[in-house]
Amino acid sequence: MKFKIAILGAGNVAWHLAPALEDAGHEITEVYARDIQNAIGITERVYSAEPKDDLDFSESRAKIFILTVKDSAISELADQVILPEDSILVHTSGTMSLEILGYSSASYTGILYPLQSFTKGKKVEMDEVPFLIESEDEGTLQKLKKLAKTISPLVYQVRSRDRKAVHVAAVFGSNFTNHMIRIAEEIMQRQGLDFEMLKPLIIETLSKSLQIGAKKAQTGPAIREDYETLDEHHRFLAYNEQLAEIYRLISQDIIDS
Amino acid sequence: MKFKIAILGAGNVAWHLAPALEDAGHEITEVYARDIQNAIGITERVYSAEPKDDLDFSESRAKIFILTVKDSAISELADQVILPEDSILVHTSGTMSLEILGYSSASYTGILYPLQSFTKGKKVEMDEVPFLIESEDEGTLQKLKKLAKTISPLVYQVRSRDRKAVHVAAVFGSNFTNHMIRIAEEIMQRQGLDFEMLKPLIIETLSKSLQIGAKKAQTGPAIREDYETLDEHHRFLAYNEQLAEIYRLISQDIIDS
Repeated sequence: MKFKIAILGAGNVAWHLAPALEDAGHEITEVYARDIQNAIGITERVYSAEPKDDLDFSESRAKIFILTVKDSAISELADQVILPEDSILVHTSGTMSLEILGYSSASYTGILYPLQSFTKGKKVEMDEVPFLIESEDEGTLQKLKKLAKTISPLVYQVRSRDRKAVHVAAVFGSNFTNHMIRIAEEIMQRQGLDFEMLKPLIIETLSKSLQIGAKKAQTGPAIREDYETLDEHHRFLAYNEQLAEIYRLISQDIIDS
Repeated sequence: MKFKIAILGAGNVAWHLAPALEDAGHEITEVYARDIQNAIGITERVYSAEPKDDLDFSESRAKIFILTVKDSAISELADQVILPEDSILVHTSGTMSLEILGYSSASYTGILYPLQSFTKGKKVEMDEVPFLIESEDEGTLQKLKKLAKTISPLVYQVRSRDRKAVHVAAVFGSNFTNHMIRIAEEIMQRQGLDFEMLKPLIIETLSKSLQIGAKKAQTGPAIREDYETLDEHHRFLAYNEQLAEIYRLISQDIIDS
């Protein structure tokens, strides 16, 4: 099943999604951005999509309209876009509800959330990206599932409540792991030490964690309940109260769990 | 420069270090463990080392004696081991001081700390393991440097004070990142969701983090100062007060930094 698709927004998601959809055999008809230059930045990545800076899609041949703009812009754009009959409007956000599309002129609405961190210019293997899909209309759900499956085998039908849980888990697994590495970088820099020294350990730990599960993979002073070392480290971090408290709290949680 | 080396302890470090030393051309003369069966478990991994369950090494041909036992056992073992003349005694701990070897019968003491997480049976590329070395004796330092260099090019001379900083940073970069993944696993499980869904995102984030630095790699609601999502997530975590507090504190630290 091949679809005609219009993309609204010209950010990181659009940059990756438009060529992936085309490679999967779909046709990108238009790309909208408030600034036409940004729209052209995306249409240049595909065969023959039309760049647009107005929201009148009443003459569009597209069937599916994908909102790839940032969360705070979804509501306004959904309300303003003029869509043809029988169109499906979806957003690609991990946090926003389905209801946010409720006042649009679309016949059907849904969510097509690629659970990945995208940066323009940095290649992502799209066939390894999980897609979380949602719709209240069974026909739309099936279409979104078919569409997503043409890009990646990892397609999950997820209710809004669960999508929120996924997003919270993603914050811990992605943003917070990244921040722990940030803190490690800063401790090393502060002492004039080369952060490269730590990379093999971090890579080994995290590959082990994803392979055998984080519970089994845990090591270090907290899981050993080595209070002497924990106290020493806590004292070491006395120069930054918030950091010392983060150290204490996570160590406690490791001990408790 | 090839050394004759005795290893004391038969845990994860000994399991990896003994064959790596032999592969690098050194001779493992003896392996000590309180339980001789454990010593044999290591001697079987090398050419012709003698398993021992007594601490009298006065007749040993070894020049360097490597303590690979757990932190809490180092002091007692160092005090009790009977060493030949001109011997070097080192421990392999990231946390213990050099002074802990001060009451031993060794002529020289030092530290040879492999900065990696070892598990018996799980292969580690030893030539990618950083070795942190330390000694108050210049000749010993040079010997340890030469010894470590035969295993890995990543050899760093580090003072005790800095070794503590490295260890604190390692706790954040390794143990705490792992615990963040653990929490993500639990949130998914609690909701009956497949954790596999999150793995591509975690892998992408962390590879980006190590490639371009964690500061640049950060994404998510905290760095965007998206207080609406932060509040929602905080409410979602209300079932576990400690978890909610961890979420709040790390988010605050991301905002502050």
